[in-house]
Amino acid sequence: MSDTVNRQWRLKTRPSGDIDDDNLELVEAPMPEPGDGEVLVRTIYLSLDPTNRIWMSDMDQYMPPVEIGDVMRGGTIGEVVQSTNPDFAAGDLVQGFWGWQDYAVLGPQALRARLSKDDSTPLTAYMGLLGAIGCTAYFGLLDIGQPKPGETVVVSAAAGAVGSVVGQIAKIKGCRVVGIAGSDEKCRWITDDLGFDAAINYKTENVLEALRRHCPDGIDVDFENVGGEILDAVLTLVNQNARIALCGLISQYNANDPVPGPYMFRNILMKRVTVKGFIVTDFLPRFPEALAELGQWLAAGKLDYRVDVVDGLENAAGAVRKLFDGSNQGKLMVRVSADPKA
Amino acid sequence: MSDTVNRQWRLKTRPSGDIDDDNLELVEAPMPEPGDGEVLVRTIYLSLDPTNRIWMSDMDQYMPPVEIGDVMRGGTIGEVVQSTNPDFAAGDLVQGFWGWQDYAVLGPQALRARLSKDDSTPLTAYMGLLGAIGCTAYFGLLDIGQPKPGETVVVSAAAGAVGSVVGQIAKIKGCRVVGIAGSDEKCRWITDDLGFDAAINYKTENVLEALRRHCPDGIDVDFENVGGEILDAVLTLVNQNARIALCGLISQYNANDPVPGPYMFRNILMKRVTVKGFIVTDFLPRFPEALAELGQWLAAGKLDYRVDVVDGLENAAGAVRKLFDGSNQGKLMVRVSADPKA
Repeated sequence: MSDTVNRQWRLKTRPSGDIDDDNLELVEAPMPEPGDGEVLVRTIYLSLDPTNRIWMSDMDQYMPPVEIGDVMRGGTIGEVVQSTNPDFAAGDLVQGFWGWQDYAVLGPQALRARLSKDDSTPLTAYMGLLGAIGCTAYFGLLDIGQPKPGETVVVSAAAGAVGSVVGQIAKIKGCRVVGIAGSDEKCRWITDDLGFDAAINYKTENVLEALRRHCPDGIDVDFENVGGEILDAVLTLVNQNARIALCGLISQYNANDPVPGPYMFRNILMKRVTVKGFIVTDFLPRFPEALAELGQWLAAGKLDYRVDVVDGLENAAGAVRKLFDGSNQGKLMVRVSADPKA
Repeated sequence: MSDTVNRQWRLKTRPSGDIDDDNLELVEAPMPEPGDGEVLVRTIYLSLDPTNRIWMSDMDQYMPPVEIGDVMRGGTIGEVVQSTNPDFAAGDLVQGFWGWQDYAVLGPQALRARLSKDDSTPLTAYMGLLGAIGCTAYFGLLDIGQPKPGETVVVSAAAGAVGSVVGQIAKIKGCRVVGIAGSDEKCRWITDDLGFDAAINYKTENVLEALRRHCPDGIDVDFENVGGEILDAVLTLVNQNARIALCGLISQYNANDPVPGPYMFRNILMKRVTVKGFIVTDFLPRFPEALAELGQWLAAGKLDYRVDVVDGLENAAGAVRKLFDGSNQGKLMVRVSADPKA
């Protein structure tokens, strides 16, 4: 990383199917300079998330797509390098959404949170459990899923950043929790380390049969990250008045052709199921409430998480693909520059 | 109809695809006799509804399926012929669920409502607007759909018994209402007589294009009776935080092969849509509230309805098929014996 050049990943072409080498290009832009009241931040961590693939496409979506030629969008943590704003000083640690680049110049409203330099919480935690990821799990499960003690909760992408938190909160709430993940190692992690009651490796097991075995009383809550055949299996086994918190449909983000909805869609009617799509930003005003409780659970040892940190901004475009083949282990992020708390 | 024989339609075989002549058989059973505390009722009206097709199948459903050999299930209105129960006397008009037969013997708990012999409300109204049909429209639209003044409400099967009431309530609530129906005559009825803002004939128009034209501000509420391509068109145009009250999926009840869910399922996520399946019996304790308000609107001339009455129990099995080719005009029912209020 040079101090006179700002490297930026820009969207060059929209993906057709899987993200490939031609979709994003790394360019060198001049160092931006802060204007009046602005701050210059240096990126420390860049979050990589399944929704990156949605933003790269021009499908109808919950935010405007990233335009061709624009810097790729992404959640970030960084350090203030230079400030003309009285509220921020060089060395402050801040969280924002300035995307896939070494540096950015931002107004204070774009700095979403200030992070402590001194406490023992690693910065990476704010990319996962103590950030939008944790809030996604918290509000999706508790507000939409409304799990009651003794109910059965199913989580897909259960070893993922969101899913692993969902399952642990469901255990705190006294539920039976069954996770679906993509490797035996991930299944072991969520059962042995996180306390899920059962795990299903969807790559080696018949998900419907396995769910039937692990959910003898049916399914009351589904936290859905995947869609496709997994959602169909869940819908086959839902109980009356089940709730489905629809958080993601990663199985179809890379599809070029129209993807059919679940074949068991009719069970939404027959079983009086509630399906609710949500985006965590819908809950933005209530983030403090979630972060406070997540922080308490973390401090009490009731929540665990793991991070998958890839070094170097230049590796971001390659690393994001790990989310789609499932080879990441934990919340995926890029370390763009040195972490002063590490 | 003989006074010594009780004709009954019994389920003989489960339908494969459309209901055919071999699925139901008309048999003659002996007249039942009331035991202690029971009443003998003579059927006056038998309700025919799309859900009959669900009950005839053994698919996973919201009530147990009708068993082979059992009398076909259905809503009924009748007159008490003989009673050993002090609460009921010969001549009382009662509503219940005793199915496709001339007579039935029932305990008092099976008589769901007593209907006035003297007021001006026709008995047929209780089969539609002032019964489960009206409550279905009322709770599905108001509780699940939560329409706000100025919002756009779409109703499929809009000239049907439920749909026509949904649209009129949505107009009372100040919404823009677009109905989808299966003939130009039905479209004229819902716009000219019922006050819908627009109607789409799905048999002659491209539903997606027509919805786009008639819903310039998108769709906020969908009262879904049909599913399939119609639901897909709706999902293409839903606004953020739209609500879909899933009441029926008549387009697929006759399907033998697995039916894909909506191809635009992903918009449930992208637009944070709530989809909620419901069965009107979920709201049973609140029926009086709905029936009171529906009655007031009817008396005030704010609601209209029409009935399609087929004469003769022997014609029930033929008549039920009208629901699936759309040839009924209004709430479909069979007049099994003379209506004392007509």
